[in-house]
Amino acid sequence: MRITGTTRVFLIVGDPVAQVRAPEVFNHVFERAGIDAVLVPAQVAPHELDTFVRHALLARNIDGLWLAIPHKTALVPLLDRCDRLGRTAGAVNAARRHADGSLEGALFDGVGFMQALDRFGVATRDRRVLLVGVGGGGVAIATSLAAAGVGRLALFDAVPGRTDVIAARLAQEFGAPVVSADRADPGGYDVVINATPLGLKPGDPLPFDVARVDRDATVVDILMKSQERGIAAHPGYEMLVQQIPLYLRFFGIEAEVDLDEVRALLAR
Amino acid sequence: MRITGTTRVFLIVGDPVAQVRAPEVFNHVFERAGIDAVLVPAQVAPHELDTFVRHALLARNIDGLWLAIPHKTALVPLLDRCDRLGRTAGAVNAARRHADGSLEGALFDGVGFMQALDRFGVATRDRRVLLVGVGGGGVAIATSLAAAGVGRLALFDAVPGRTDVIAARLAQEFGAPVVSADRADPGGYDVVINATPLGLKPGDPLPFDVARVDRDATVVDILMKSQERGIAAHPGYEMLVQQIPLYLRFFGIEAEVDLDEVRALLAR
Repeated sequence: MRITGTTRVFLIVGDPVAQVRAPEVFNHVFERAGIDAVLVPAQVAPHELDTFVRHALLARNIDGLWLAIPHKTALVPLLDRCDRLGRTAGAVNAARRHADGSLEGALFDGVGFMQALDRFGVATRDRRVLLVGVGGGGVAIATSLAAAGVGRLALFDAVPGRTDVIAARLAQEFGAPVVSADRADPGGYDVVINATPLGLKPGDPLPFDVARVDRDATVVDILMKSQERGIAAHPGYEMLVQQIPLYLRFFGIEAEVDLDEVRALLAR
Repeated sequence: MRITGTTRVFLIVGDPVAQVRAPEVFNHVFERAGIDAVLVPAQVAPHELDTFVRHALLARNIDGLWLAIPHKTALVPLLDRCDRLGRTAGAVNAARRHADGSLEGALFDGVGFMQALDRFGVATRDRRVLLVGVGGGGVAIATSLAAAGVGRLALFDAVPGRTDVIAARLAQEFGAPVVSADRADPGGYDVVINATPLGLKPGDPLPFDVARVDRDATVVDILMKSQERGIAAHPGYEMLVQQIPLYLRFFGIEAEVDLDEVRALLAR
């Protein structure tokens, strides 16, 4: 990849940011497609996000942001416009500056997750789903599940009361059967999803009791780093892979992408 | 080059920025030396430089700036500390953020220019030198010429009065024989230096009458893009090459650099 004075620059903003894989993925995509653009990390503390974002985008060739944890939700109040999924979830993956200086955001995590589940052959339509963890990633998944016609969606989070607001909002926005669960008990569900950070560190406890999972149920873990622990589907990488075309379209970048090449890159 | 979440990011800030060669040069250097760092362009309008710089450096992994025209001089008032050459010239090439948030600047253009002249075998010590153009690059060169013991330095600039302040400051700081010239007449000088932007565009007039150059005098043009027009030395690229170790030292980057490789890259 050759960076010159004409290169368009995108930032992925997170705190921490060392763990993000997007620079490898998108710079590979840009290089292969001959796109004169680069994605670089920016580690920005939560209390400085607002001022950083507004001023970093003053640069004429820095016209877009990727958001990483914990900024996916924190960026939403700074947006002038947002797609329906992002607005409902209160989280975005990307933001772009328009010529008039306004900032538009969009959420891809949920769509990427649903497409990843498709690829793994996991159905959620009309099925009973338990989602554990409604942080930035979890709320995006909950929103897309609700939008896609889940049979019943129960939300659990270790932070008390956190799921109530989300359940009510999704029920209202999509007329979807979304409820809060008072325990992370996987019994009685067809699909059980871990969207907590548990599993990022070796020795982390499981977010729910795997022994209580129904016989024919599917367990899904969105963590990219999670170890195999009797868990059926790991759409973490695939979620990211599925989002690549969505990012490119959002930023108006026309590029042919070989997703299998990206899968190989992420598996390295 | 492989950019990941751990990559240290540097910005080269200019307006325009499309013409800068530093990203090619330094990213090549980083890659060859195995340094996990990247230099990317940022086009920032003059009236937004202050706010951009202060806020872009809020990112913990963006800890340094390269300055391109017209920001080499504009950044100086924003600095907490500056080396002597930069302070005297009122221009800097680079700025780094310290842990306490303070911003330190340094000027390398003049040192790079003097080293480039050495390489081309052009002496200035005790010689009569005419410098045409005292913008960001010219003032840096004037400062290093004065600091290095020039015989007599005459400054000319198309902007009336611009050279007087500089000549007075250099005379005071270095006790050097620096004067303003009221015309760009190269007659009577041993070395004549074009530090104006004239020559950047095809068809630009010459900044002085080449026919009036003394028989044994040397004409030097710092423009990287200037065409061969009976001009003896073009240290533009070499100025940049000579500055590479200075930048790396300033930013605390330990890297072995093969300058001949960089020369070959710039000649491509």
